[in-house]
Parts: sequence; C-alpha cells; structure tokens
Amino acid sequence: MAEPLFRRLALIGVGLIGSSIARRARARGDLAGEIIACARTEATRARVRELDLADRVLEDPAQAVRGADGVILCTPVGTYGAIAEIIAPHLAAGAIVSDVGSTKQSVIRDVGPHIRPGVHFVPAHPLAGTEHSGPDAGFAELFEGRWTLLTPPDGADPGAVEKITEFWRRCGAMVETMEAGHHDRVLAIVSHLPHLIAFTICGTADDLADESRGQVLQFAASGFRDFTRIAASDPVMWRDIFLNNREALLEMLARFMEDAQAMARAVRWGDGGYIEDKVERGRKIRHSLIELNQA
Amino acid sequence: MAEPLFRRLALIGVGLIGSSIARRARARGDLAGEIIACARTEATRARVRELDLADRVLEDPAQAVRGADGVILCTPVGTYGAIAEIIAPHLAAGAIVSDVGSTKQSVIRDVGPHIRPGVHFVPAHPLAGTEHSGPDAGFAELFEGRWTLLTPPDGADPGAVEKITEFWRRCGAMVETMEAGHHDRVLAIVSHLPHLIAFTICGTADDLADESRGQVLQFAASGFRDFTRIAASDPVMWRDIFLNNREALLEMLARFMEDAQAMARAVRWGDGGYIEDKVERGRKIRHSLIELNQA
Repeated sequence: MAEPLFRRLALIGVGLIGSSIARRARARGDLAGEIIACARTEATRARVRELDLADRVLEDPAQAVRGADGVILCTPVGTYGAIAEIIAPHLAAGAIVSDVGSTKQSVIRDVGPHIRPGVHFVPAHPLAGTEHSGPDAGFAELFEGRWTLLTPPDGADPGAVEKITEFWRRCGAMVETMEAGHHDRVLAIVSHLPHLIAFTICGTADDLADESRGQVLQFAASGFRDFTRIAASDPVMWRDIFLNNREALLEMLARFMEDAQAMARAVRWGDGGYIEDKVERGRKIRHSLIELNQA
Repeated sequence: MAEPLFRRLALIGVGLIGSSIARRARARGDLAGEIIACARTEATRARVRELDLADRVLEDPAQAVRGADGVILCTPVGTYGAIAEIIAPHLAAGAIVSDVGSTKQSVIRDVGPHIRPGVHFVPAHPLAGTEHSGPDAGFAELFEGRWTLLTPPDGADPGAVEKITEFWRRCGAMVETMEAGHHDRVLAIVSHLPHLIAFTICGTADDLADESRGQVLQFAASGFRDFTRIAASDPVMWRDIFLNNREALLEMLARFMEDAQAMARAVRWGDGGYIEDKVERGRKIRHSLIELNQA
C-alpha cells in the first residue's frame, strides 16, 4: 500500500463528488491519513456521520482546513469566493488547495487572490457525475476511467501539480493539464450547452397545455428520455456553472442557435439535402466517439 | 398457439422496424402464415435471405402485395406516396394496409387517396427504435412494453382497426388510438424536436476549429454523449420525418428557441433565480417520467 498522499485531507462540501472522494479515501489508505468533512447543513453532516465518510464532520470551513495539507472545494462554484475568503487565514503553510468545479477561469478569479505565498493552488475538474446529488449519491469508483482536467495558474508549484495529478490517478482517472480558458470553451460545448438545452426543452414541454403534457410524459420516446436524464441534475450547481462560464456558454449557445435557425429554414423550405447532411455529420461524430472510447 | 392474424403479410422495407416485425413473426406463428419481404436494393434483399427473415424476398412492391391480406409500409415516410401508387391496383379486396411511420397526417395525405373502397387503411406508429438501422439491427423483442399509436382516419373499418391493435398487442406493445394531428404534435415535442436539436449540436461541435474538435471528442462528458446517441440515426428516415411533420415541428422549435433565448438572457444578466427555476422544472418532469414508468 502506498503512503497516504495527504496527512489530513479537508473536503469542503460532501455531495456527489465530495462523498465519492471520501468513499475512495476510506476504501484504501493511499489518499489521506485523516479525512475532515465540512458541510453547511446539519442534515448533510448527520448523514455523513451515519455513512461514516470522515474522521471528523464540521460546519465551519475555517476550522475544517486547520492543519490540513490538502483542501478540496466540492461545493457549487458560486460559493468558492466566499469560502476562500473564510479559509484563507487558516490554511497551513505548504497546503495544497484544489477543487472539482466545472468552470475554471472563475475559480482562478474567485479563489486565486485569497491564496497567500507558501500555499499552493491547483484547480481541477473531474469529468464525472450522475444525475443524482447529495452524500448518498457518491461511490468510490465514480472517477475510474474518466478524465480529470487540471488548470494550474501561471507559476503554479510543479510539486503541487504532480501531487494533485497523482491524487486523481489513484482515484482511477486519466489526467490532463490545460489552460483554464481553453478548458471553459471545451466544457461549454461538451457539457454546459447540452445541459442548458436539456433544461430548456423540459420547460418547453412543461409549458404545453395540460392535456398534451400528460401525453408528452406518457409517450416520451427515447429522444426526450435522454434529455430528461441530463436535466435531472442539481439546480444550484448548474445555475452556478452557467453564471460562471457565461462568455463561453453564450458564444456556444449563439453558434447553436444560428445552426438551429438554419435547420428550421431547411425544414420550412424543404431542403432535404441540407437536413440529410446534418444528420450524417452527427453520425460521424458518434462514430468518432466510439472509436476514441475503444482506443 | 393463436391462429395467425394474417394469412400472408407483406413488409415493404426491411430496416430496423421491418426486420423486427419479421423476426417476431418468424419466432411465433401467431402473426403471419407467410411473410413476404420487399426491399429496394439487392444488398438488403441478399441480407434478408441470409438472415432467413421471410418466405419470399422481392424487389417489386406491386408483386409483394399480391394476395396479401396484410401490408405494412416500413420505409422512410417520404417514400409512402410513390409506393402507395405502385401497390394500389394490386391490393387484394379486404386487405389491410398499415405502416410504422413517425408522422401520421402525411401518411393519411400520401397513402389515403390511393386506397380504394374494400381495402382498409389503418396508420400505426410503434414508439420503438434504436440508433441502429438496417435488417441486421432488428430484434423480435423491440416492441415489448412500448407504445404503438394508431391514427385511423374517419370512417375506418372497426374490424381492421381491431386487427392492427391485436397485431401490435401480440408484438408486446401497449396500443392507443388518437387523431393524426394530435399524434404529430405530441411526437414533435417528445421525439422530432429532440432529434433535430441533437443533430444540430453535433454539427455545431463539428464546426469548431480542428484542435478544439479533437478535445470535444476526447472529453465528451455525459451530456454530449447522450446527444450523440440520439444523433446516430438514419439520415434519410429523419429527413423524411422532419419534412413530413413540418408545421408541428417548426412550431415546437419556435417555442424552444424562445425559451432558449430567455435562458441566454438570464445567463447574460445573471438571473440565477430564473435558471434555478428552469433546472428545477426539468427535475420535476424527470420525476414524473420515472413515476409513470413505474405505474
């Protein structure tokens, strides 16, 4: 068994991702010698104690990070600035602060200024999740075979980056490092825009007259079912993601709307060749995805 | 074992749906005494023979329907008018003509006028499918536990409607009858619009610069993966569906675009409450779907 990477690991937030990290750390001793879990509500703290996910369960983030050599923010990204301000004076010298948020420029903007010299800051984003949330939703294998993207800011300590890389490798993830702005653009198209569209179309369906709505639910074909699976995610988490990747998301949405308008025009004017071409391109992207997954 | 519903059943088109009907009919003798399969290309006919899906495999629809008491059109809906014109003079007295198309007003418009008195016409739509196509993609259990919607035109023969109902019940489907225009509106929102959106977003991603596109594929999170599964369907089939449910599809698309614009506006101006509300509605629809499936 490898030595634990962190002597004391503080997890701020214990939802799907935080509780999955805790479970993985509990399952083997190679991630953390001691796990401190921090949750805002008493209900979550009680549940984390019942599930025995941590050595200590605390309400106050400042207390949670004291003496920790690893701190991972696992709350919605909109909370990061306030939490960073609270924990900053209490971070131990040499500690590494990381996170799991889906937007990375905002994390560097909101957390970076609070990190004093001698404390390390390595933003990270595990591309893993389900449509469930909360401490009961997590499982130790969530990150296995999935990507985790690191976006260390300029001048980040190479040792700290290597340690977070190793942390996620031990969780079973494949790790890649990229610039935060690039991360946000890629995630806007592969994740944030699809979710925004899924939430929107659910609302569109919900707005139909009552009689139609019942039949929409009754006859939901596979198409709509896939959308609703995407759409059954945590409202606050997604609100924060959309608001914190605003520019890239609005750009991708604008491109998508132009393309949807072009498709509408093709349908209206009966341009079968255009429609066929678009469907064919979707098929090809699907094919590429399958090939990449097999590789 | 029940007596076969049809003495001789002609399947015009042997793709995913047609070959699934053929497999179900082959598996048990309660659907058809004899199966005639009709396919346009020699490649498909050869494959249907290899798979032993029919008693006879023919190229000419007119020949295929001769002496058949049941005829089911299983080709893309855009072909129905021409096929109806070809087969009309050769339909046996008392035969029932049905189909499996995803648009129903267009079927009544394109096929109805060719049906002479004494021949019955009962349009049907099994809400079943996968992202695969062709005679190899079918399986006998495809329709089990799924809905099949019938849209008999005014004055349809009750006996013929009952026979098609029984046909799909024996395939394992739940059957409901509704007006064709209503069917087309419900399907526009539960299936046609989601597919149009999925095809569009795949194109939007494909238009990104090459370097980003590679990473889109590499890091495709669950959101985008669900979209590409939807998008990997048959181009000609979907082209025909979009063009033959034009009005309902354009209306649902216009509603969706308005809603997406409202979402974009909320993101731009930081209206977190609006976004949270939309995500919450998606969650509720998801919840309703799960409850209905359990009921």
